[in-house]
Amino acid sequence: MKPSRAIGYARRNRRRFIAELQEFIRFPSISNEPRHSADIKKCAAWLAAHLRRIGMDHVRVVPTRHHPMVYAACRRAPGKPTILIYGHYDVQPVEPLDQWRNSPFDPVVKDNKIYGRGACDDKGQLFTHIKAIESFLKTERALPVNVKCLFEGDEEAGSPELQAFVERHKSALRADAAVMSDTRMLGPDQPAIGYAQRGNVRFELEVQGPRRDLHSGSFGGVVLNPLQALCEILSTLHHNDGRIAIPGFYDKVREWSEQERDYMARTGPKDAEILRDAGVSHAWGENGFTAYERVTIRPSLSLNGLTGGYQGSGIKTVIPAKASAKLSIRTVPDQDPSEIQRGLQEHIAAVTPQGVRARLTMLGASDPALVNRNHPAMRVAALAYQKGFGAKPVFLRSGGSVPAASVFQKVLGIPTILMGFALPDDGMHAPNEKFNLPNFFRGIETCIWFLAAAARLHGLRRSSARQGELAL
Amino acid sequence: MKPSRAIGYARRNRRRFIAELQEFIRFPSISNEPRHSADIKKCAAWLAAHLRRIGMDHVRVVPTRHHPMVYAACRRAPGKPTILIYGHYDVQPVEPLDQWRNSPFDPVVKDNKIYGRGACDDKGQLFTHIKAIESFLKTERALPVNVKCLFEGDEEAGSPELQAFVERHKSALRADAAVMSDTRMLGPDQPAIGYAQRGNVRFELEVQGPRRDLHSGSFGGVVLNPLQALCEILSTLHHNDGRIAIPGFYDKVREWSEQERDYMARTGPKDAEILRDAGVSHAWGENGFTAYERVTIRPSLSLNGLTGGYQGSGIKTVIPAKASAKLSIRTVPDQDPSEIQRGLQEHIAAVTPQGVRARLTMLGASDPALVNRNHPAMRVAALAYQKGFGAKPVFLRSGGSVPAASVFQKVLGIPTILMGFALPDDGMHAPNEKFNLPNFFRGIETCIWFLAAAARLHGLRRSSARQGELAL
Repeated sequence: MKPSRAIGYARRNRRRFIAELQEFIRFPSISNEPRHSADIKKCAAWLAAHLRRIGMDHVRVVPTRHHPMVYAACRRAPGKPTILIYGHYDVQPVEPLDQWRNSPFDPVVKDNKIYGRGACDDKGQLFTHIKAIESFLKTERALPVNVKCLFEGDEEAGSPELQAFVERHKSALRADAAVMSDTRMLGPDQPAIGYAQRGNVRFELEVQGPRRDLHSGSFGGVVLNPLQALCEILSTLHHNDGRIAIPGFYDKVREWSEQERDYMARTGPKDAEILRDAGVSHAWGENGFTAYERVTIRPSLSLNGLTGGYQGSGIKTVIPAKASAKLSIRTVPDQDPSEIQRGLQEHIAAVTPQGVRARLTMLGASDPALVNRNHPAMRVAALAYQKGFGAKPVFLRSGGSVPAASVFQKVLGIPTILMGFALPDDGMHAPNEKFNLPNFFRGIETCIWFLAAAARLHGLRRSSARQGELAL
Repeated sequence: MKPSRAIGYARRNRRRFIAELQEFIRFPSISNEPRHSADIKKCAAWLAAHLRRIGMDHVRVVPTRHHPMVYAACRRAPGKPTILIYGHYDVQPVEPLDQWRNSPFDPVVKDNKIYGRGACDDKGQLFTHIKAIESFLKTERALPVNVKCLFEGDEEAGSPELQAFVERHKSALRADAAVMSDTRMLGPDQPAIGYAQRGNVRFELEVQGPRRDLHSGSFGGVVLNPLQALCEILSTLHHNDGRIAIPGFYDKVREWSEQERDYMARTGPKDAEILRDAGVSHAWGENGFTAYERVTIRPSLSLNGLTGGYQGSGIKTVIPAKASAKLSIRTVPDQDPSEIQRGLQEHIAAVTPQGVRARLTMLGASDPALVNRNHPAMRVAALAYQKGFGAKPVFLRSGGSVPAASVFQKVLGIPTILMGFALPDDGMHAPNEKFNLPNFFRGIETCIWFLAAAARLHGLRRSSARQGELAL
């Protein structure tokens, strides 16, 4: 099946595709905020209806203990490989709201970019695959390969249900390779295929002091302030040289060969590019590693939030009863989340001053993921990018974490091709998140080429005849 | 003028007094939150109307650049001293709201206590004076002394306008002594007269890192996190022994004689009492001083709030662009706010790591206050307490700061009698703030006795005939 008619269709329908993406973005599907549960449900229903409308079969909204999964399939290519397309329709919270130039769920198209929460992470990128499928189905009434779609509503919440779900529906989800678009390219004309992601272990630390908030006039100087204790505890987590100061933290960190590090140096972003993308002038971090290495093959510990005491305007002279922090650790092979938790727990217990109690809670964890750069599906993706973007992609490591990649590897035994279309300045997780429309359009064509090329690929294991649809 | 008829009136009208206090508390007059400006205005208007209704003259609501002052006078006692009664009708913010058992502005009477924000600090205590005045005016049509009332709407915001206001209306506010009830007794049957308060210098510290929020996966390990930098900076403010680590901070701290410290040890609360009131089991703070000394004659530095990054449920893996803290320093004689600011500024500049910018803003300052324990007005207050509570008061230092006391000393040259009726567990500034009704009633009678006794006092300078009313 040639992609030319599908590509023609995709080009003719760009304006409508943008309008549909705007509709998709309008759902405030923030998975982390319980008050948005109904919005998540509505978004899942919209997505399922959309998949039905473009001609997918077996469309289902499958409830989980958290937010629902949206599943669809199109298995009209007997003897051809099966591709599992993964994406997520949930989005990050929008705070700080005052820094947005438009309302985050009222997407705006400006200067050939679409602005809104989820524009790029991951609604826009997920949509490239849907629009590629539609372009085939509306012109050929079939796809070049068998396709299963699994769209999650919990990725930004750490995919707490994904592994159990994939284990439960292992046979139905069977495929030869998975593909997802939730990562970044190197630049507008420099496509990149992800082959490694860091893991992510997330914690909340709560420090409890006096039973109730106290007046800092009456008690300042005689009671240990939980805010102060929290700062003192958190200030011990890094050495001055940027290394994480938890004893034993680096014991299991995998060291990479000179060859791999040379490859990374040749293909990856330079220090200056990473700093420019971050909008900072001064590098920070572990000595002895490039910036690219620091954010990919080295673990990192980030404080993600501090809360305590009075946060309004002016001041309230209070010694609060408690204070808390959110923090997350990006892990690398072969670190183990439960060992990380134990190490952090012991370290905190050792440095917590008398007079307060510290309680550490693990909020979730995902493993790092690694894909063999020489896997045949990687070559298919490289070809697709060359067609879609007119440039040969580099293979990139990513510092982020999409739990799906490690789950698919672990449970289904298949690689996940991280075929990202985002740009470094797209502001994923930040105010004014955007997706460049040229990337949206080229992304759709790249997905079309990917499906077409996957069909001709003999290296992919033929999909099993025994596999069924999702048992509900 | 004998107080017996006034006291009879006060006893007969207790139920109505409670209902009126509830009305007063219902105004959410939070001075620190701009969205409550209209509530502050309404509360001031209510208070002025109430003062008119009980028979006060010259009642005025006087606008300032912040919130209005409420002024009233009753000068029908020629040849008698003039007492300036000060109080504040604004209240603290109510956060954390989820810890309140009743809505903070829907006051509840339970177990002979009234619960609500401002019940004790300072609406309830201010009201003791108003009800004392009413009791005289409704029974004697006059007061034993000349009285001027100045009720502020900005005390919890640090009284930013008070000094300028008192300077501008210096002649109109002239008096022989000031009295305020905004402090604590030692226990339900142990009245206490305040003779010293600490000063208070308030700051906001903002740490700015990258220009925008960043994804902690993409940039964790290569960008200095402002949350981490903030914690590291704040963790340097104290030595391990509880002393403040700002260079030169203690240079001007006044040392007290053995005699004074002996007096404090005899009359003041014991360490165990202070810890019990604080609800903590473990003391903290500067070595070599009792708990009472630490909160009164020694300075302290308290973090009052931390804000930064994601504060919702779950986690958002963000490296925020900025983080901030509120902190305040309780000062003692002879520390100078601008020297404190300079020292803190220099210390922060020295410890701020490369890669972030720290900005310190002074939000306000008030001086410590000291009153001679042998001033004649102190003896009047002691007598009033003996009558009102049946117990001889002790003279207490307080760790808090009411800017009015130092302003009246500095501008009007008069002492301020800190005649408090609050109890140590009243939860000033905390959730479930309360005022014990027995303290309310005995407070009113104490105020009645105070006005009566002040008239007979020859030690007080006669009020000047030249003084006028508030020029508006």
